[in-house]
Amino acid sequence: MSVSAPTHRSDIEIARAAAKRPITEIGATLGIPADALVPYGHDKAKVSQGFIAGLADRPRGRLVLVTAINPTPAGEGKTTTTVGLGDGLARIGKRAAVCIREASLGPNFGMKGGAAGGGMAQVVPMEDMNLHFTGDFHAITSAHNLLSAMIDNHIYWGNALEIDDRRIVWRRVMDMNDRALRDVVVGLGGVSNGFARQTGFDITVASEVMACLCLARDLDDLQRRLGDIIVAYRRDRTPVHARDLKADGAMTVLLRDAMQPNLVQTLEHTPAFVHGGPFANIAHGCNSVIATDSALRLADIVVTEAGFGADLGAEKFFDIKCRKAGLSPDVAVIVATVRALKMNGGVARADLGAEDVAAVRAGSVNLARHIANVRGFGVPVVVAINHFAGDSEAEIAAVHAAAADAGAEAFVCRHWAEGSAGIEALASRVAELADADAARFTPLYPDDMGLMAKIETIATRIYHAGEVVADARVREQLATWEAAGHGHLPICMAKTQYSFSADPALRGAPSGHSLPVREVRLSAGAGFVVAICGEIMTMPGLPRVPAAEGIRLDAAGQVEGLF
Amino acid sequence: MSVSAPTHRSDIEIARAAAKRPITEIGATLGIPADALVPYGHDKAKVSQGFIAGLADRPRGRLVLVTAINPTPAGEGKTTTTVGLGDGLARIGKRAAVCIREASLGPNFGMKGGAAGGGMAQVVPMEDMNLHFTGDFHAITSAHNLLSAMIDNHIYWGNALEIDDRRIVWRRVMDMNDRALRDVVVGLGGVSNGFARQTGFDITVASEVMACLCLARDLDDLQRRLGDIIVAYRRDRTPVHARDLKADGAMTVLLRDAMQPNLVQTLEHTPAFVHGGPFANIAHGCNSVIATDSALRLADIVVTEAGFGADLGAEKFFDIKCRKAGLSPDVAVIVATVRALKMNGGVARADLGAEDVAAVRAGSVNLARHIANVRGFGVPVVVAINHFAGDSEAEIAAVHAAAADAGAEAFVCRHWAEGSAGIEALASRVAELADADAARFTPLYPDDMGLMAKIETIATRIYHAGEVVADARVREQLATWEAAGHGHLPICMAKTQYSFSADPALRGAPSGHSLPVREVRLSAGAGFVVAICGEIMTMPGLPRVPAAEGIRLDAAGQVEGLF
Repeated sequence: MSVSAPTHRSDIEIARAAAKRPITEIGATLGIPADALVPYGHDKAKVSQGFIAGLADRPRGRLVLVTAINPTPAGEGKTTTTVGLGDGLARIGKRAAVCIREASLGPNFGMKGGAAGGGMAQVVPMEDMNLHFTGDFHAITSAHNLLSAMIDNHIYWGNALEIDDRRIVWRRVMDMNDRALRDVVVGLGGVSNGFARQTGFDITVASEVMACLCLARDLDDLQRRLGDIIVAYRRDRTPVHARDLKADGAMTVLLRDAMQPNLVQTLEHTPAFVHGGPFANIAHGCNSVIATDSALRLADIVVTEAGFGADLGAEKFFDIKCRKAGLSPDVAVIVATVRALKMNGGVARADLGAEDVAAVRAGSVNLARHIANVRGFGVPVVVAINHFAGDSEAEIAAVHAAAADAGAEAFVCRHWAEGSAGIEALASRVAELADADAARFTPLYPDDMGLMAKIETIATRIYHAGEVVADARVREQLATWEAAGHGHLPICMAKTQYSFSADPALRGAPSGHSLPVREVRLSAGAGFVVAICGEIMTMPGLPRVPAAEGIRLDAAGQVEGLF
Repeated sequence: MSVSAPTHRSDIEIARAAAKRPITEIGATLGIPADALVPYGHDKAKVSQGFIAGLADRPRGRLVLVTAINPTPAGEGKTTTTVGLGDGLARIGKRAAVCIREASLGPNFGMKGGAAGGGMAQVVPMEDMNLHFTGDFHAITSAHNLLSAMIDNHIYWGNALEIDDRRIVWRRVMDMNDRALRDVVVGLGGVSNGFARQTGFDITVASEVMACLCLARDLDDLQRRLGDIIVAYRRDRTPVHARDLKADGAMTVLLRDAMQPNLVQTLEHTPAFVHGGPFANIAHGCNSVIATDSALRLADIVVTEAGFGADLGAEKFFDIKCRKAGLSPDVAVIVATVRALKMNGGVARADLGAEDVAAVRAGSVNLARHIANVRGFGVPVVVAINHFAGDSEAEIAAVHAAAADAGAEAFVCRHWAEGSAGIEALASRVAELADADAARFTPLYPDDMGLMAKIETIATRIYHAGEVVADARVREQLATWEAAGHGHLPICMAKTQYSFSADPALRGAPSGHSLPVREVRLSAGAGFVVAICGEIMTMPGLPRVPAAEGIRLDAAGQVEGLF
């Protein structure tokens, strides 16, 4: 961090001190009339469905993806850079907008956190965004659990669809870290409560309803996707869909408001669409298509981000979101920090304070691999070195050199401390690349490649794995889905975010490792096949001392302990 | 129903055709400045905590309770009359406001329904009010389930509080009709998921958090109540409170926005506060104290309602809500219909079409008993005969006569068909009684009466029961709570709403029956002792053909099948 005012203030202090503009003014900068905004308080609004429907014929602006090296506990600042870059583009005269994900409520009561950016590069109002915000996740929870209730209710009243209750794959969800709900038996208590069976709860962001909402073009498309959700199988292994239970219409009604993107602002009043938040492991980890698409039709240039490092996040952004929504990214920014590169180079977290140019060089193989991977999609890459106070000149020079060797220009960015002024150089270069129309985006694999071949393509080309290990059961399952007409779907990899491999301890740029595909799942509504490599937790637990114990209203009525 | 325009239109058609005024204009009629309104769309707002805090020193206006005879399938129209009376009072020049409960989301997907009033006496926007509205119930669900997660998490991490996991009384909630969740085992799946134990889910409106929110004066009082909630007992039977788990602060944060009353409008633009919705059996069944109190400080006269018939609803309104909030009702309106009185007089639903003056007379014993009961609280009573098209002059005359015999004037009200014009006579009489300051309100029993004696007092004085049957276990439990300092609490009766007795088939005005108290529960946060007389369902199920199957968005994007 450079020495400047924000180092003395916490993110929440900065956010609270922000002089927010009325949300109608923010909308006006994108040409959204006040009556097309559905206000939620004075600083949040949804953009109305009707207004969005009218945008379809407008041309799209430029699209910039912010992604990162593999995350480490040292932190990379991907959201902070996304926000800062949006502000930077506005600073150089572009009509810019930012698109990021909504935060999940539950985890905030486990560990402190959940800010939307940091320092002078934040989206506000921060408290609301980490609590109920505009209620989207609650609506998703309701829609998901209505479907769950309708499954058990259908069986209770005679099971005309002949659901095999051992093969119900639709669980329930709650936006709460509650490990006791991971594995439960429901329907106890006798005849009037139904049939007992084992099932469980996931956290709401892991719901396929979330992924459907984030990939749907409009309400009709949403309803079609919801109807396509496979909830169970019969004894003959044929699938039962949400549509068979006639749940899709009511679920769509519950999601009608939630489908409208939320508009807020950065500290520098750049419009920010904050909408949707699917898991980045069993789902694709990007904000909604409807938000990104709407922003593109309203702004000259839109900055968005994808979950985790580029091996997972950018690959899924390109191969799932862009492919399915017909988006064509113009530039990708890979965020790296000297500290995180050092950790990728083998330095322990406790030793990050000391200068270690050799470790930066060693760790930069991770950055170089991500640069090459992203360039492989036909998208120009620039590197954002998110500056921390302890970074030495020599260390920064090492990052510049490594990036240049991999074919990407790097920029030191001080947006955390300085806001848009600290990221102007990167913003100018990004704008230049975008306007040059240099991108020739192509997904990694074609739709008509076999499902197993798609997995192998990702594993070898992106992860540099030597082999994919999957037992016969997994291969047969994929073949069955291909036979049932799902072979055209893209793959959603669920793998550790800490490594190119499936081993979280393997930092840097490992090659020749073997990628175990433990299980595959069909998300027929969202429209992808999930390949699960390793343990994936879909319902977190609370720590020994949950953050909730320290969360309260202070004497002034402000939230204490959430950040 | 009189022959008039609304008979040709459904409630939802009327509601959709309504020319709503901007919610800031509605607020202005009560002197609420625009910046004290937190908008949720253009037709809903919350009244800000800060503005409400500034009202404390203002005098309160007049308070009118709308209650009813025992409900029958023929319908009484209590909410419709509440709304119509509010409009009627505005029509005669009063600064009037209406206070009603919010609707629960889940049940709308079971049976069609959930309108807020009917005909020309409705609150709008009706669709929002029956879906997510302003998110209050979702916030209550989150706060409740955070506490649940913290209980199991505490045990998981060593159980320092020595909770006896066989004696955990705090369940989980969901705003959904899901019978499979009534009785569940959680914590299966091995060490990392915690300890297996049997528990269950209630519907959100049954949550004690809901009752706490509805009875709390302000956020401090809310946090105190939440802290007082008993979640479990130790092996030595000492209670463990939410405060012991340090959950009360975070729960209050989750409820901060939900504590602000919601402001909407009637079809005639009378301000309507729609806030909170506790069960009328295991809780007290009234809208929030903060909404009623705020309305009273802003309006000349406030019309509110209580759940079920007067034996349950009015008694709890008086003995729980008014007692605890220091409210002093000025007039009570008992709603009756010719049809419902006929059913109380023994006529089957299918035979309601034929004139039957004798049956009306016979059924009017029910009305007379309620009039006498309510007058016993020192509150003047008038009767609203909610007019239906098939009512004959002779039948109506019989109701007038029965009411007069019981000491109350009756008014035929045509607000359903005609709006405020149809209820002007009742409104004038209510205003006159209120302004005459004739009420001498006293609760039924003093705080310092024993808990069992309070139950007996309600049973004999209100229900005309001959005896209360409760086994030793129940009596000992009450004695234990008295010894622990809870003896001052009021009683919350959970009994069938269809009869003065515990037998739903016993219509009219039964006397000398015996009231079985099956179980007692302590709601230490809400501040009452629940006496359960018969089966009380706290998690409904869906019917064979759930309404959800027919709910969808139509081509115009409007909700179909919800009403």
